[in-house]
Amino acid sequence: MYLFQCDYNKMCHPAVLAKLNESENLSMVGYGKDDACAVAAEMIRNLCDAKDAYVHFLSGGTQTNLTVIAASLRPYQAVVAAESGHISEHETGAIEATGHKVITLPPEEGKISAKQVKDIVELHYTPTGPGPEHTPQPKLVYISMSTEMGTVYSLAELEEISAVCKAYGLFLYVDGARLGYALASKGNDVTLKDLARLCDAFYIGGTKQGAMFGEAVVITNPLIASDFRYMIKQRGGMLAKGWLMGLQFVALLEDDLYFKISARANEMADRIRETIKAAGFALTAVNPTNQVFAIMPDVVLDELSKSFMFTEWCRIDAQNRLVRFCTSWATCESDVDMLCAAIRHFGKGD
Amino acid sequence: MYLFQCDYNKMCHPAVLAKLNESENLSMVGYGKDDACAVAAEMIRNLCDAKDAYVHFLSGGTQTNLTVIAASLRPYQAVVAAESGHISEHETGAIEATGHKVITLPPEEGKISAKQVKDIVELHYTPTGPGPEHTPQPKLVYISMSTEMGTVYSLAELEEISAVCKAYGLFLYVDGARLGYALASKGNDVTLKDLARLCDAFYIGGTKQGAMFGEAVVITNPLIASDFRYMIKQRGGMLAKGWLMGLQFVALLEDDLYFKISARANEMADRIRETIKAAGFALTAVNPTNQVFAIMPDVVLDELSKSFMFTEWCRIDAQNRLVRFCTSWATCESDVDMLCAAIRHFGKGD
Amino acid sequence: MYLFQCDYNKMCHPAVLAKLNESENLSMVGYGKDDACAVAAEMIRNLCDAKDAYVHFLSGGTQTNLTVIAASLRPYQAVVAAESGHISEHETGAIEATGHKVITLPPEEGKISAKQVKDIVELHYTPTGPGPEHTPQPKLVYISMSTEMGTVYSLAELEEISAVCKAYGLFLYVDGARLGYALASKGNDVTLKDLARLCDAFYIGGTKQGAMFGEAVVITNPLIASDFRYMIKQRGGMLAKGWLMGLQFVALLEDDLYFKISARANEMADRIRETIKAAGFALTAVNPTNQVFAIMPDVVLDELSKSFMFTEWCRIDAQNRLVRFCTSWATCESDVDMLCAAIRHFGKGD
Amino acid sequence: MYLFQCDYNKMCHPAVLAKLNESENLSMVGYGKDDACAVAAEMIRNLCDAKDAYVHFLSGGTQTNLTVIAASLRPYQAVVAAESGHISEHETGAIEATGHKVITLPPEEGKISAKQVKDIVELHYTPTGPGPEHTPQPKLVYISMSTEMGTVYSLAELEEISAVCKAYGLFLYVDGARLGYALASKGNDVTLKDLARLCDAFYIGGTKQGAMFGEAVVITNPLIASDFRYMIKQRGGMLAKGWLMGLQFVALLEDDLYFKISARANEMADRIRETIKAAGFALTAVNPTNQVFAIMPDVVLDELSKSFMFTEWCRIDAQNRLVRFCTSWATCESDVDMLCAAIRHFGKGD
Repeated sequence: MYLFQCDYNKMCHPAVLAKLNESENLSMVGYGKDDACAVAAEMIRNLCDAKDAYVHFLSGGTQTNLTVIAASLRPYQAVVAAESGHISEHETGAIEATGHKVITLPPEEGKISAKQVKDIVELHYTPTGPGPEHTPQPKLVYISMSTEMGTVYSLAELEEISAVCKAYGLFLYVDGARLGYALASKGNDVTLKDLARLCDAFYIGGTKQGAMFGEAVVITNPLIASDFRYMIKQRGGMLAKGWLMGLQFVALLEDDLYFKISARANEMADRIRETIKAAGFALTAVNPTNQVFAIMPDVVLDELSKSFMFTEWCRIDAQNRLVRFCTSWATCESDVDMLCAAIRHFGKGD
Repeated sequence: MYLFQCDYNKMCHPAVLAKLNESENLSMVGYGKDDACAVAAEMIRNLCDAKDAYVHFLSGGTQTNLTVIAASLRPYQAVVAAESGHISEHETGAIEATGHKVITLPPEEGKISAKQVKDIVELHYTPTGPGPEHTPQPKLVYISMSTEMGTVYSLAELEEISAVCKAYGLFLYVDGARLGYALASKGNDVTLKDLARLCDAFYIGGTKQGAMFGEAVVITNPLIASDFRYMIKQRGGMLAKGWLMGLQFVALLEDDLYFKISARANEMADRIRETIKAAGFALTAVNPTNQVFAIMPDVVLDELSKSFMFTEWCRIDAQNRLVRFCTSWATCESDVDMLCAAIRHFGKGD
Repeated sequence: MYLFQCDYNKMCHPAVLAKLNESENLSMVGYGKDDACAVAAEMIRNLCDAKDAYVHFLSGGTQTNLTVIAASLRPYQAVVAAESGHISEHETGAIEATGHKVITLPPEEGKISAKQVKDIVELHYTPTGPGPEHTPQPKLVYISMSTEMGTVYSLAELEEISAVCKAYGLFLYVDGARLGYALASKGNDVTLKDLARLCDAFYIGGTKQGAMFGEAVVITNPLIASDFRYMIKQRGGMLAKGWLMGLQFVALLEDDLYFKISARANEMADRIRETIKAAGFALTAVNPTNQVFAIMPDVVLDELSKSFMFTEWCRIDAQNRLVRFCTSWATCESDVDMLCAAIRHFGKGD
Repeated sequence: MYLFQCDYNKMCHPAVLAKLNESENLSMVGYGKDDACAVAAEMIRNLCDAKDAYVHFLSGGTQTNLTVIAASLRPYQAVVAAESGHISEHETGAIEATGHKVITLPPEEGKISAKQVKDIVELHYTPTGPGPEHTPQPKLVYISMSTEMGTVYSLAELEEISAVCKAYGLFLYVDGARLGYALASKGNDVTLKDLARLCDAFYIGGTKQGAMFGEAVVITNPLIASDFRYMIKQRGGMLAKGWLMGLQFVALLEDDLYFKISARANEMADRIRETIKAAGFALTAVNPTNQVFAIMPDVVLDELSKSFMFTEWCRIDAQNRLVRFCTSWATCESDVDMLCAAIRHFGKGD
């Protein structure tokens, strides 16, 4: 079986495992106050050109999202996010469980716009009803980079969203579960420095980017950063052996490994995209990152599924389904060859 | 100034105030364990033909909604409601503040359908993603009677929604802030007995129906009812002098006053609706209850607003706005005469 | 039956009911944005000599406590309170339901001291364990005036507690469910002005002080006050007919009625206290307010209970129980005569 | 420096790392639905003689405690725990952040008794105040095995606590962060089978017992178990690469490794305890597990701290402090030799 169903089906990049192995006998201070976390945090601050940024390591994406958001909001404040956002759709109401509403906006290919944010905030402050205090107050904009559809915000888009947030006193937070794939993608013009400059907080994903587990949160706004370790501990995200995450991020960030493996995964995805297109099938949410979304006939997908794992997204019509092929650092070039050959074989022009 | 802006701008129906005055010197047991609440509860059980129903009195609608919903759900469970539902739009995220997501459905004239409920529940249990536990579990359906648009569910519609809820193990809860207007409306075929039979919980609104304050919750499902007094106390809804609400409901339910004043308010609204239609203006969400929704030109509304209070709903286009005229037990017939005359005066056919 | 079981067993002071009756036909703006609330708020600001204070009216004590505290704290912050505090003992975990721990201190006759507060805060910041972030951060001190035992903080005690709070960045909040009894008590040297000067927030109780319902929250710290109406709405404390509370407070504050009826209730309680002492029974938590705590033999209490209602507090030993006799604006002098005569009759020296 | 400060300062037992290394190239299903978790769960069910038990793997202790407790309780229900319990003292109010009060009992050497539980529950149901609904309802008893003081509940004690819980309808939950040390300790008569039989839920700690991270929750009560994966996901405890925990528990449970390394750590601690006693210093909370609590003079501790790391617990008096020496699978026998020699050297009899 060839595996294209997700980017978290293998343990970790060999360099990560090697780093853990070579650190086996170290004795470390607990709860993230160790040297490995300090080194990784400093590497990240340098990459972000943000020497005052606060960097913390949490165990997973949902954990990170709920902790940052709970730390940012007063009880009556709400998050603004795309309907397709991970917090909106796939975290079992984790944000609502911290007490906050997620106000959703209809996205275009996974992305929301500065204008949408502006409109929803203005609607809140000029309601037709009895007053703004009868609706939750929008206070934090959540976007993902790359998005659930694999798309990437341009620098101009980010600048605009950030400007609206600043104008209206909102926080901007970027979910970076797949940040490497976004930043290493062709045509991308956003850097870590831009994120540190434009956002109040964001995270550099580890789990889907070559680590065993772990996400690195970068907080540039002291209002969110203050007492953040209390929040991590209270929400259950503070690992006793926090240095495990520090070590993994050191391994991933050394020699730009994080970006190199992301770029390679994107290239593998590009090959799949081109093959699908050439074979006459439709792509949706065409994007430059590691997720390929294709609409293909049931008969083709049923054949493909005998040898290849991919993810069902939704049914399009009686004969066609939308599916996702996903690459990662672990994707073998030969597997991609096999997949592309199969797609060509079943292609409409074949 | 003639008042049509809402149904809660006067203190209370004279019979309610009289009942309070005559009870001034009574000494009562605190926290709703008094005789007046017991009598009112028994009157309600009789009206509902539900001798085992649990009846409690809470101070307001948001309080009631959040207390019932928090009592009904485990942490990962969600409410299903219309996008225009009061809990979705006008309670400052009160439900989310109890930890629960409100999954919204696009309503038709304020109402959602059994099919919409069925579809959203089936979608939850047959997801295309990694499994249902990655999304909140729909567990309680919230509808309003009458709805935010003044419309009324038919008995057939309620039966269907209730059947879907039972089939999938969901609770059905009806927000009855304006229940009297709904039940007393022309063409309505739903009774309190039906609500008690088809719902797990609902409330009989007092605040917008002639009381100073207070809503009577009727719970027929013991899973929600058990320990409900703990919930009321914890959420701040247990008035020390709970008998004040018992007395008010006794006054409202004696001699069918509740339904009589609702019917009269509906008639006043009917007159306004007919006048608007005859004057050539458009009605939206045409309904048989005490809220009249009309689309009228700015020039007309600006003139009307010099003598009449009404509620701005939203802008329709460059020249027209949607507004609401609201009647209640307190609406004077002569005020309606004045309003109708003015509308006729500004009417298109004038 | 003569009633001494609580201070909320009668509807309201006649002046309050009169005020409501004379306002029956007024038409008012909803949700507390009316003139009556504005007038009452201004009266309170004047009494407090705090022209910038924010004043809001909520429906009950638990509602008020949970709303103020939820508005004041970030998720990992905790309240410091006496073990016997109302929020610690008698609100069904309402504060915990907002997500916050109540750290309790052993009180002396219902009161906690500045030193206790200082010690618990210093313990937090110099822990022996892995770091302060492993325990909730004390952030708000909750005290009651009068306390659950009827005792009253002196101005010196309040000044000290306030100084500690300021030194360590904590909020000071005073639960004033029985504030009138405290401020009108013999020997009291605290004024509303002092409370406004020393606290970040406090409330002037209505329910137990002659109103039907309603508490007036005074917030002097803008950090707590900002967006407070969102908090009231979200937690269900915003009555549609908020003016009912404004009217009641106007009635209570006119001509110092609030303090006059409190002083009279205290005098009634003083007579009971003196009689109990003279009769040879023990008083505990001797206090100058409307609650009398006495230890009396079962045989006496069983006889008294045939004609008088009082509250059981706890068993002291095999023969004696602690009970509470409570007075209020509604207590008749002749009832006190009867009670005192009965106590003398059963007195040890009889 | 010789390390006795905690049991989580080394990465993991070599067998655990070996198991991860040999699994490097496996491709696994995400979110804990993999074969390794299935195998580990089956091993645990067998060890517990509980073929129907539900077993889940979570990332850490606080995460586990808050998830199990939130899954078990309705909003007004509370936990009963020792004042020294981990949830009471060292989890930043994580339980309160889920909305629930922790009712604390004064422990004896870290343990609470069946009688204490019985008394607090009976007090709740026969209050002297206005009714039980004014206080949170005790519903879950939380104990630790071993306790924070290293002590161990006997089988008889557990049977009694369990019987009280069953009689009053309470859940019994055991925090097993150091369960191996407890079960492998001299004189212990409790088995995993007993825990499965007597508790509604408990967890087998990994983090402090040789794993990198991860705790195995065993739930025998279907009321808690139902939909538990929703709870894990919502609270952020569901690792994408859940199999990492399955693999680690397989490694720890093979050939009884978990119990063997626990027994050895206990023996090391026994040697330290005997040495301290022989040297004339006082032990407190004498226990048979891996934590040694000793009261020693400042002058001795200051000398010891030059070569040995240990944990400060609290000051006893002007000259003495209570400290903790902790052993684990990673403790070297030669380090223990050095520590014992040093203690003997500074001993009172020296």
